[in-house]
Amino acid sequence: MKLYEKVALVLRDNIESGLFVVGDKLPSIRQLVAEHKVSISTVQQAYHQLEIESLIEARPKSGYFVCYQRSASVLPATSRPAQRPIEVSQWQQVLEVLLSKEGVDTIQLQHAMPNMTESTLKPLLKKMSDLMRHQVALSLPYGDIKGALVLREQIAQLATNSGCVLHPDDLVITSGCQEGLSVCLRAVTNPGDIIAVESPSFYGSMQAIQAANLKAIEIPTNAETGLSLAALELALEQWPIKAILVTPTCNNPMGYCMPEADKKRLYQLAQSYDICIIEDDIYGDISYQLPRPKTIKSFDEDGRVLLCSSFSKTVAPGIRVGWIAPGRYRDKVTHVKYVSSSMCPTLPQLAIADFIHSGRYNKHTRRVRLLYKQGRDHLIQCIKKYFPQDTRISFPQGGYILWVELNKHYDVVKLAAQCKQGEVSIAPGTLFSATGKYRNCMRLNFSEQTEVERERGIRHLAHYIKKQSIVEGHH
Amino acid sequence: MKLYEKVALVLRDNIESGLFVVGDKLPSIRQLVAEHKVSISTVQQAYHQLEIESLIEARPKSGYFVCYQRSASVLPATSRPAQRPIEVSQWQQVLEVLLSKEGVDTIQLQHAMPNMTESTLKPLLKKMSDLMRHQVALSLPYGDIKGALVLREQIAQLATNSGCVLHPDDLVITSGCQEGLSVCLRAVTNPGDIIAVESPSFYGSMQAIQAANLKAIEIPTNAETGLSLAALELALEQWPIKAILVTPTCNNPMGYCMPEADKKRLYQLAQSYDICIIEDDIYGDISYQLPRPKTIKSFDEDGRVLLCSSFSKTVAPGIRVGWIAPGRYRDKVTHVKYVSSSMCPTLPQLAIADFIHSGRYNKHTRRVRLLYKQGRDHLIQCIKKYFPQDTRISFPQGGYILWVELNKHYDVVKLAAQCKQGEVSIAPGTLFSATGKYRNCMRLNFSEQTEVERERGIRHLAHYIKKQSIVEGHH
Ligand SMILES: Cc1ncc(COP(=O)(O)O)c(C=O)c1O
Ligand SMILES: Cc1ncc(COP(=O)(O)O)c(C=O)c1O
Repeated sequence: MKLYEKVALVLRDNIESGLFVVGDKLPSIRQLVAEHKVSISTVQQAYHQLEIESLIEARPKSGYFVCYQRSASVLPATSRPAQRPIEVSQWQQVLEVLLSKEGVDTIQLQHAMPNMTESTLKPLLKKMSDLMRHQVALSLPYGDIKGALVLREQIAQLATNSGCVLHPDDLVITSGCQEGLSVCLRAVTNPGDIIAVESPSFYGSMQAIQAANLKAIEIPTNAETGLSLAALELALEQWPIKAILVTPTCNNPMGYCMPEADKKRLYQLAQSYDICIIEDDIYGDISYQLPRPKTIKSFDEDGRVLLCSSFSKTVAPGIRVGWIAPGRYRDKVTHVKYVSSSMCPTLPQLAIADFIHSGRYNKHTRRVRLLYKQGRDHLIQCIKKYFPQDTRISFPQGGYILWVELNKHYDVVKLAAQCKQGEVSIAPGTLFSATGKYRNCMRLNFSEQTEVERERGIRHLAHYIKKQSIVEGHH
Repeated sequence: MKLYEKVALVLRDNIESGLFVVGDKLPSIRQLVAEHKVSISTVQQAYHQLEIESLIEARPKSGYFVCYQRSASVLPATSRPAQRPIEVSQWQQVLEVLLSKEGVDTIQLQHAMPNMTESTLKPLLKKMSDLMRHQVALSLPYGDIKGALVLREQIAQLATNSGCVLHPDDLVITSGCQEGLSVCLRAVTNPGDIIAVESPSFYGSMQAIQAANLKAIEIPTNAETGLSLAALELALEQWPIKAILVTPTCNNPMGYCMPEADKKRLYQLAQSYDICIIEDDIYGDISYQLPRPKTIKSFDEDGRVLLCSSFSKTVAPGIRVGWIAPGRYRDKVTHVKYVSSSMCPTLPQLAIADFIHSGRYNKHTRRVRLLYKQGRDHLIQCIKKYFPQDTRISFPQGGYILWVELNKHYDVVKLAAQCKQGEVSIAPGTLFSATGKYRNCMRLNFSEQTEVERERGIRHLAHYIKKQSIVEGHH
C-alpha cells in the first residue's frame, strides 16, 4: 500500500464509521501533514482519491467536506448472468412501460426523464421559438443527410471534454441515441452475430439487438466498476463475439463510471480480438465529476469505437437529437442511417447548436449536475430509512437513476403492478435483463421529484414491500 | 367494342390528330347524341373514359375541354429487368445524390421536392410557430410511442378518401415514410428473404431492402399500369417471395397509377400466396384525379397490407412526419419502430393534425395538384420540343416527377455528371434499379421551377444530349 493510500484509508474509515458526517469539514492539509508525517502532495493525493470515490468534495478556498455518508449502504453484488449467447426477450414488458400512462398524482420514479424545469433550459426554448418564427422555411426542405454542420461542429467541440478529437465530418446526427445504437448495431454486424453487453443493461439497446437478429451475451458487471473485464475476456475466448455494447459512464441502470484504466483495457481487449465497441455515452456530460470522465472513444487509435449519444438525458428527450461518432464505420453508418429515417429535422439541430455555442449547454449541465447529486444523496437516505435493512443500493457517479437490489425473495414485477394502481411508478429489474433476471431489483430515478414527493414515493414503495414480505412469509 | 368505346375512339382520334388542341371546348353531349345516334349515357360514358385517360377535363357548367395533347409522346416500354433475386447495389451513387450540393443557379430537376412556396402552406407554418411559442413545453418530454393521438385521428379520417377504414389505434407515426418502409421491411421479413419490387423503383426503398439483408426481385413494370401482374405471378411461382413492396399510386419515378382492378388483383395474388404487401402511398394525395385513387389497403380484408406514407411530398419533407397502417403486423411494427428511433417529436405532429383538421391540408393539396398537372404538361411540351425525336416520356397521373427514356445509346450517368458542373441537375435512371440498369433514362421533377427555368433546364439538357450523340457518333 502506498503512503497516500494509507492516509486515504484512515480518512475513509473515519467517514464510514460516522466520525465525520455529510457537510463536515475535514482536517486541513497542513493538519494531516503534521498528524501523519507525510508530504503535502501525499495528503493531496489522498484527498484526490476520496474525491474520485465521491466521499468528499473540495470547495474553493474553504477546504474539503464530506459529501456522502457511505457507511450503511451496501452495493449490489457483481451480477452473475448466464454467460452464453441468448435471444433477448422481455419486449412485452418493455412495451407495457412505454405505453403506461401515469395519473397526474403518480410519483414518477419509473422513467429516466431529466429535470426540465430549471431556468437554465429557457434560452434553448427561446431559441427554438425564435427559429420557428423567423426561419421557419428552414424546417421545410430535406436537410443534410449527416446533420446540420453547425451542430456537428459544436458536438466535435464538446467532445474534447471527454478527451476526444473529432472532426465534424466524423459525426452523423441521429433521431436520438436510440437510432444511433440501432444504426451502429446494424452497421457492424450480420444477422446471428453475438453482442456482449453489461448486465443489467438498458432495455432499448437490448431490444435493438433483438430486432437486428442478433444475440446478446450478458457479462457479469460490478456495481462500482462496470463490466468485468476478466469475465469479458473469458467470453471472448469462448464465443465469436462481434461487438461490445456498453454504457460505461454514468451507466443506465446502475450509475457507475468504469474507471479510466478499465476503459483503456477494454479498448485494448477489443483491439486484441479485433472487434468493435459501441459506446453509449448518453449520460456522460452529467457525471458529477468535473472534468467529466473520458470516453472509451478517447483511447481509440484505429476507429473501432462507435460513440453514440444524444441530448435526451442532458437537455430533453423530446428534442430527438442524437449523434454517432462512427470511426472507421462511417460509410456503413451513413448508409444505415439514411435507410433508417433519412435526415433529421433541421431546426432542433440549429437550436441545440446555438445552446452549446453560447456556453449555455455547459451552464445547464453544471446546474442540473448539482441537483442530481443532491437527489441521489436524498434518495439513498430515503431508501435506507424506509426499505428493509438488507437492501442494496448502487451509488451513481452521475445521471439520475439508481439500482436497488432487494432480498432475493421479493418480486418487484408484482410490486410494480401493485404500485401502478396507486401512487408511485417504478421500473422493475427484469426490464434490464435479456431473460427476465433481476426480479428482486428495480431502477428508480431521482431527477424530477421534490424531496417531499420523493420521500412519499419511497414510503409508498416500502409499504408494498412490507406487505409482500408479510404475505409471502419471509422475514 | 362497346358503343361508348367507339364514340371515345373517334374523339380520341380527333384530339390525337390535333383537330382539337389544349384548351378547346369539345362538342356538347347533345351534339354528340345527334351526331352518333347514341344515348346520352353512352356519350357520358365516352367522355368519362377520356377523362380517366386525362385527355379531357370537365369544367362545371361549361362542358368538356381538351387538357392535353397526347399524340406525339410515346410512353417508355414495359421494363425488362433480370427476374431473379439480387442484392441491391448502387449505394455509392445514391450517396452522391444525397450529398450533392447544388449551386444557387442550378435548375434543380433532380430531387423530388414539393412546391413549398404556395400561400396555402402558410397556416401550417403559423401553427408550428404558435405551438413553439405557447406550448413549447410539449416538445420536451418523450411523447406517445405510437405518435400523438390527435394526429392519428386525423390520418384515420383522411384515409377514408382512399377507401380505407382505419382506427387511430391501427396507426403508428414514423419519422417520414423512409422509416416506415424500413420498419415494415424489418417487421415482416427474416434476413435473406426476397422482396418483389417494381422496376424502376424508388432508391430509398431498395437501399432499405439491402440494409435489412434482403434480396430484391425486380418485376417488369408498365409505364401506364404499373407492376405486371402476369410477371409477378410467374415470379411468385418460381421464388419464395416474402413480401411485395409497391408504390402503385402516382409512382416514383414513373408517375403511373395502377388501375383499381389491378390493385385488387394484386391483393388477391398476395392472398393466394399468403404473403404481405408493403404499399407506399406517399404521393397518393396529390393524384390529379379527384376523388383520389383507392389504395390497395382499401381492399385489405385480413390485415396483410402495410400502408406507409408521410407528409413529405404533399406538404414538406423537413417536417419528418410519416405513418404506417400495419394491419395484422401492428405489434411487430411497434417493436421495430421503437428500436428504430423511439418516439417522434410531438409539435410537428400537432401542427399537422391541426392543418388537416382545419381543412387546410385538403385546400393545399387541391391547390398544388393543379400546379403539378400544369407543370407536367409544360415539362412534356419542353421535352418534346428539345429532346431527340425517339425520346419516350412517362405520363404521370399525380405528383411531380416523370421518367424519360432516351435512345439506348445514350449514357445518362455521364450526362448527369456533365450537367452537374453547370446549370441543371437530374437523377440518372440507374439510381432506380437494383443493378444499375436504366442507364439511358432519367427522372425529372416539375414541381419547383418557373416555366422559364424549366424550359432553360431542358434546353441545357438537350444541348448535352446532342453533344453526346455527336461524340459517340450515333444518329
Ligand atoms: C443508456 C441509454 N441509451 C439510449 C437511450 C435512448 O435515448 P434517446 O431518447 O436519445 O433515443 C436511453 C434512454 O433511455 C438510455 O438510457
Ligand atoms: C416513393 C417514396 N417513398 C418514400 C420516400 C421517403 O419519404 P420521407 O421523406 O417521408 O421519408 C420517398 C422520398 O423520396 C419516395 O419518393
